[in-house]
Amino acid sequence: MKIALDVMGTDYGPSELVLGAVMAVKEYGCDVVLVGDEPTIRELLKKYGAENDPHLLVQHASQVIDMSEHPGIAVKTKKDASIVVATDLLRNKECDALVSSGSTGAAVAAALFHLGRIKGVSRPAIATPIPSLTGTTVLLDSGAKVDAKPEHMVQNAIMGSIYAELMLGIRNPRVGLLNIGEEETKGNELALATYPLLKREKLIHFIGNVEGRDINKGTVDVVVCDGFVGNVVLKFAEGLATAILTMVKGAILQGGLLAKLGGLLITPALRGLKKTLDPEAYGGALLLGVRAPFFICHGSSKAKAIKSAIGVAVHGVRSDIVARITEDIANQTKLDDGVSQTQESRRVRQ
Amino acid sequence: MKIALDVMGTDYGPSELVLGAVMAVKEYGCDVVLVGDEPTIRELLKKYGAENDPHLLVQHASQVIDMSEHPGIAVKTKKDASIVVATDLLRNKECDALVSSGSTGAAVAAALFHLGRIKGVSRPAIATPIPSLTGTTVLLDSGAKVDAKPEHMVQNAIMGSIYAELMLGIRNPRVGLLNIGEEETKGNELALATYPLLKREKLIHFIGNVEGRDINKGTVDVVVCDGFVGNVVLKFAEGLATAILTMVKGAILQGGLLAKLGGLLITPALRGLKKTLDPEAYGGALLLGVRAPFFICHGSSKAKAIKSAIGVAVHGVRSDIVARITEDIANQTKLDDGVSQTQESRRVRQ
Repeated sequence: MKIALDVMGTDYGPSELVLGAVMAVKEYGCDVVLVGDEPTIRELLKKYGAENDPHLLVQHASQVIDMSEHPGIAVKTKKDASIVVATDLLRNKECDALVSSGSTGAAVAAALFHLGRIKGVSRPAIATPIPSLTGTTVLLDSGAKVDAKPEHMVQNAIMGSIYAELMLGIRNPRVGLLNIGEEETKGNELALATYPLLKREKLIHFIGNVEGRDINKGTVDVVVCDGFVGNVVLKFAEGLATAILTMVKGAILQGGLLAKLGGLLITPALRGLKKTLDPEAYGGALLLGVRAPFFICHGSSKAKAIKSAIGVAVHGVRSDIVARITEDIANQTKLDDGVSQTQESRRVRQ
Repeated sequence: MKIALDVMGTDYGPSELVLGAVMAVKEYGCDVVLVGDEPTIRELLKKYGAENDPHLLVQHASQVIDMSEHPGIAVKTKKDASIVVATDLLRNKECDALVSSGSTGAAVAAALFHLGRIKGVSRPAIATPIPSLTGTTVLLDSGAKVDAKPEHMVQNAIMGSIYAELMLGIRNPRVGLLNIGEEETKGNELALATYPLLKREKLIHFIGNVEGRDINKGTVDVVVCDGFVGNVVLKFAEGLATAILTMVKGAILQGGLLAKLGGLLITPALRGLKKTLDPEAYGGALLLGVRAPFFICHGSSKAKAIKSAIGVAVHGVRSDIVARITEDIANQTKLDDGVSQTQESRRVRQ
């Protein structure tokens, strides 16, 4: 199994990514194709004593797409950008999955233009796993498509459900529509139009509307929303978690000697928690609906996060999530009826 | 000064609200008109030894609107519902402000139908103060209008700016548009159409797009969004804060004896933090754009939260926020030009 890793265009430079790949090939037994500036990559491989590791391959790419560039234009004009070259490896089946931590917009654009959508998928969606009180919830779409239509939301629900099952190991995952109230009559135009479609979709276990406060509660496994709301929520979670932990620290530091001692004593226990809350531990988000497993990590991912992401990518290939999405999207409940067809498909799978 | 307090339709019953009023009249020197079932209220006043307090008045209302009822229909059919009676006290100028902790939808409907909008305001918006690393940020709209138009967003910005200035004491508050990226070209249709309007609005200090992670950072004072996004974010904040504090507690409890001892030592320091993060300490949200100060508290508000809310309502009346909104909305930058008029209005105020 070969994973393509775009090592360019990230916050900390290629060094963290190359180190992550060096760690990953040892741990997961896969091959990694490092895509980017070859001399830089070779030098880094040497630095980490991995220049002769047969599992680490290099694919030169002379260009980089910057975070500040317009994604669509950059992907179209920079034919030799690392994300484009890496995506082409995927399209040509020279690699099985891709991991990127450069510009999210550029990654989505490269996936759309150079890899293509799964037949029947209207819009790809970014699925992001987030920690809950009882495990993990998947939130989607977290930013691929900002102005979604009800039919996109239904496909998000189907793809998110498959993600929860195959990537998180949740059987019959509970799917909720992110809304401002539990009642079917609540919500904006998009939510109101989406609800009945989710209700009749036989491929998912729809539990109705969920509210913002339910996301971390562990009472829902798949939270469906449009890419605007999902992206705002996800970034807010990042900011709020940091703010609360900073406030906890501040309260302890201002709380006198005993509080400071207490703070020291709880530090080891909180270290584990910080890891739980760290989105990087989850190995990034998965772009669902394109023709191969395509993982998008945070731009500030360090070596360990990249290693995890490669591990998750290996899992994504093994679980054959793309084949399952292809099958389910073909069998999704039709707007006219299609119920019997869907039930048939379920029976076959069980 | 008289504050109308709707004591019905809340999670814990009228008892907490009556007690909150008893505390408030002592602390703020205002009068409170308790609106709801008179025998129940009189009994509770007696229980708290306040049956002869001349600052506590009672206005009977025979009906209650439940959280589960359709707000618009309930307000129209239940003419003697406590929220309707309380709103009428406001309209007839028998009271100066209103505090409710019943159904938010019913409160908004009562305000719209029985109190009315300020001239020129297209849609009222709910402004909710939330804690940040450096103080308080105001988020609006947090649920009054779910499908907003760009012109509603501009008025939200103007009203939120006034809120930050008069209620939070922030001079020249920084106004940000909640979006999925900092660049002007990012966002959904609503955000893209709103950005240029905010940019040319002379009454506000617009700092551009802000992302979810900026809300708690203290780098923006007024965060503008539509009522759907605002409501999701606000409820998510509630859930996430609870989840993180639960996780901190769990990590400490599982962390062995030393961690447990440490947990005990930091408890007093964290008590203050819990208060900071508690939305109830802020005295509820303010419905901006209607003809009198109209405060909406969480349905689960206890006596102390109600007391704070009454204090904030007193402040809202004293600062004459309604007059200032009336003035600024009349002077907002016109879609054609109107710049000179706006500048004139600013000069007069300074």
